Amino acid sequence: MLKFSYGNSGLSESNLEITRQIAKKAEEKLVKRNGEGSEFLGWLDLPTDYNKKEFEDILNTAEKIKSESEVLLVCGIGGSYLGARAGIEFLNGTFDRQVLFVGNSISADYLNDLIEYVKDKEVSLNVISKSGTTLEPALAFRFLRQMMEEKYGDKAGDRIYATTDAKKGVLKKLAEEKGYKTFIVPDDIGGRYSVLTPVGLLPLAVAGADLYKLMQGARNVMSNSGILEYACVRNKLAEGHKPIEVLVAFEPYLQMFTEWWKQLFGESEGKDGKGIFPASMIFSTDLHSLGQYMQDGRRLMFETVIKVTNSHNKTEVPHSNIDDSLGFLEGKTIDLVQEGARMGTEKAHVDGGVPNLLIEIDERNEETLGELIYFFEKACAISGYMMGVNPFNQPGVEEYKREMFEILRR
Amino acid sequence: MLKFSYGNSGLSESNLEITRQIAKKAEEKLVKRNGEGSEFLGWLDLPTDYNKKEFEDILNTAEKIKSESEVLLVCGIGGSYLGARAGIEFLNGTFDRQVLFVGNSISADYLNDLIEYVKDKEVSLNVISKSGTTLEPALAFRFLRQMMEEKYGDKAGDRIYATTDAKKGVLKKLAEEKGYKTFIVPDDIGGRYSVLTPVGLLPLAVAGADLYKLMQGARNVMSNSGILEYACVRNKLAEGHKPIEVLVAFEPYLQMFTEWWKQLFGESEGKDGKGIFPASMIFSTDLHSLGQYMQDGRRLMFETVIKVTNSHNKTEVPHSNIDDSLGFLEGKTIDLVQEGARMGTEKAHVDGGVPNLLIEIDERNEETLGELIYFFEKACAISGYMMGVNPFNQPGVEEYKREMFEILRR
Repeated sequence: MLKFSYGNSGLSESNLEITRQIAKKAEEKLVKRNGEGSEFLGWLDLPTDYNKKEFEDILNTAEKIKSESEVLLVCGIGGSYLGARAGIEFLNGTFDRQVLFVGNSISADYLNDLIEYVKDKEVSLNVISKSGTTLEPALAFRFLRQMMEEKYGDKAGDRIYATTDAKKGVLKKLAEEKGYKTFIVPDDIGGRYSVLTPVGLLPLAVAGADLYKLMQGARNVMSNSGILEYACVRNKLAEGHKPIEVLVAFEPYLQMFTEWWKQLFGESEGKDGKGIFPASMIFSTDLHSLGQYMQDGRRLMFETVIKVTNSHNKTEVPHSNIDDSLGFLEGKTIDLVQEGARMGTEKAHVDGGVPNLLIEIDERNEETLGELIYFFEKACAISGYMMGVNPFNQPGVEEYKREMFEILRR
Repeated sequence: MLKFSYGNSGLSESNLEITRQIAKKAEEKLVKRNGEGSEFLGWLDLPTDYNKKEFEDILNTAEKIKSESEVLLVCGIGGSYLGARAGIEFLNGTFDRQVLFVGNSISADYLNDLIEYVKDKEVSLNVISKSGTTLEPALAFRFLRQMMEEKYGDKAGDRIYATTDAKKGVLKKLAEEKGYKTFIVPDDIGGRYSVLTPVGLLPLAVAGADLYKLMQGARNVMSNSGILEYACVRNKLAEGHKPIEVLVAFEPYLQMFTEWWKQLFGESEGKDGKGIFPASMIFSTDLHSLGQYMQDGRRLMFETVIKVTNSHNKTEVPHSNIDDSLGFLEGKTIDLVQEGARMGTEKAHVDGGVPNLLIEIDERNEETLGELIYFFEKACAISGYMMGVNPFNQPGVEEYKREMFEILRR
């Protein structure tokens, strides 16, 4: 079971007394559904209250996709791809290419590289957009639809899946016309909170994830006391002149998860001139790039570390005839070495003035993935209310779009 | 030719008068080689003054590797992999897997995934470490050496290349014993400045890069006036309560380049409680995740945008029978749409209080890659001197290692 601790944050329980009261009020707002943005709380009870029939449908569809295709292309941006991508890399690592992501940039080179890469492969396509008019996926979908139709002719529609609004919008209409199978983006769940809806679940299932265990994990933490503590501690640290939070993991398979987390917190809190700036690093990789700054640079940040406690992987450091000065590690597991690096870094950074928060999960599996997802989702909502913002809107995202469309229409 | 401008930074020439004097003094220190860390200035004249014979040797070796192997594994961490990886992704995109990187984490899962991935492939190995005793690559090299010896028996040594110290160290000694071909990590160039040495050049050549054009690009900018301007403007902005710099690109192929940049600046400046916190984003991807924070969150950051002016790629938005509201883009190139997004974002962010610096390169090729590399290297050195730090050491990196080894020895 996920465990949060802040013993190395420099804060004690008594420091947090007032902040905890604020956090409790924020939590009350959330569970009583009377705060700003409460029309977007569909994710809150989702782990116990999901649509079982839809779930079966997702699983069956995933089986069909897997049997027909070597690659599933997922066309979506922001919340319509980050959760699935984070989850798939968490479970399968970075070498897996069963599911590839597209429509999340405006890059002719990327699009052409991708189309070239799948040229001789069997492909299915999942286009994910509530409205169907978001520029990046809509643009990519124009190309991909053409590619699918050239490749599969009349049968293309059997391999295209639209995750979109239940009733309205361009994509819904198109799906009806062309006979694409559709899945629903709920009205009451925003993009960054949508990973446990069909938005994230279909790609995850295609990548082989056990969705029941994923939901079980989310249920595990629904009333985890660490959620409130985490929201509480990070707000207190930000008050105390630490405006940057660095989410740290020691496993490369968590890299995209940190990207998902950055959207979750950045987009939820970053408004009205408020919010903690979300950054992320993978250690020990980035200890050899950003480690110097973390240790001795300007004191602006605290770090939150995700520790995976028990690895399945018992690989031991082999013997070497050559003295590379690592002889004392022979026979130890790599995991143990990693844990030494984590503990050493914790000590060094705390001594250097970087408060350290710790989130421990048991091992790497669907259940702990579900735990992490729900833990952060709920903590983020509480944290946003604590700051006095609506954690569920994103008015600022429209501004560049408005400017962009004005320029492009000229 | 690379062009720097700061018209959207909110600063005018007269604002910068004093800072420019400081920048000029810093530059003088650098070119007169009388500042702190001046024993590490080997990179400064490298574009005009590189070893032509070594260069030929790298090119010939790259040809040999390409003819024998499907994959080159590069085993190194920090400056011993980031430059090569950044350059290769810049030139070849993210789908290319001719060169894979390992030894930059302490992850049994990653290591096993990699070994599994190359199991049935022809492989060469380039291990990069000045001393040979850095934990991550040394640990991985124990496994990879074993893998190579199991795979190729007596011939394994013919496929292993060591980039290491000219004379001393474990790796140098081992290479001599086993007959590995070696390349030299110069004494006067630190890791983060080493991409134009054999450290970066051999992997880049294996990935097909034209190294002559790369060096030509570096030469192009050696006396580019933008270098001093950039160092100047970013220091002025940081003084003015913008402690975070976000390096932004609109092409996914620049993502690893931004990671290289983060090491360069973070590790050079982040000491004595100083330095600008380096972050990076790929737009429009991250406009749908961190865009809200950039637009409306706490006002802590300025952004530096890399713009690629002319694309080779003239892909046009195709016609669609369906009204996805993007009809007005039909027949326009994707590049033009991207430029609209860049201009729109610039306008929106500047209006939102995020100063915007712009670096323009002509197109995506070896020459512009070389321009970017040298531009940032020199600007970083000047910027570090301006802050009063030694830009060429990294004392803080040792702290976690000391703690880690103490823990692991127990």
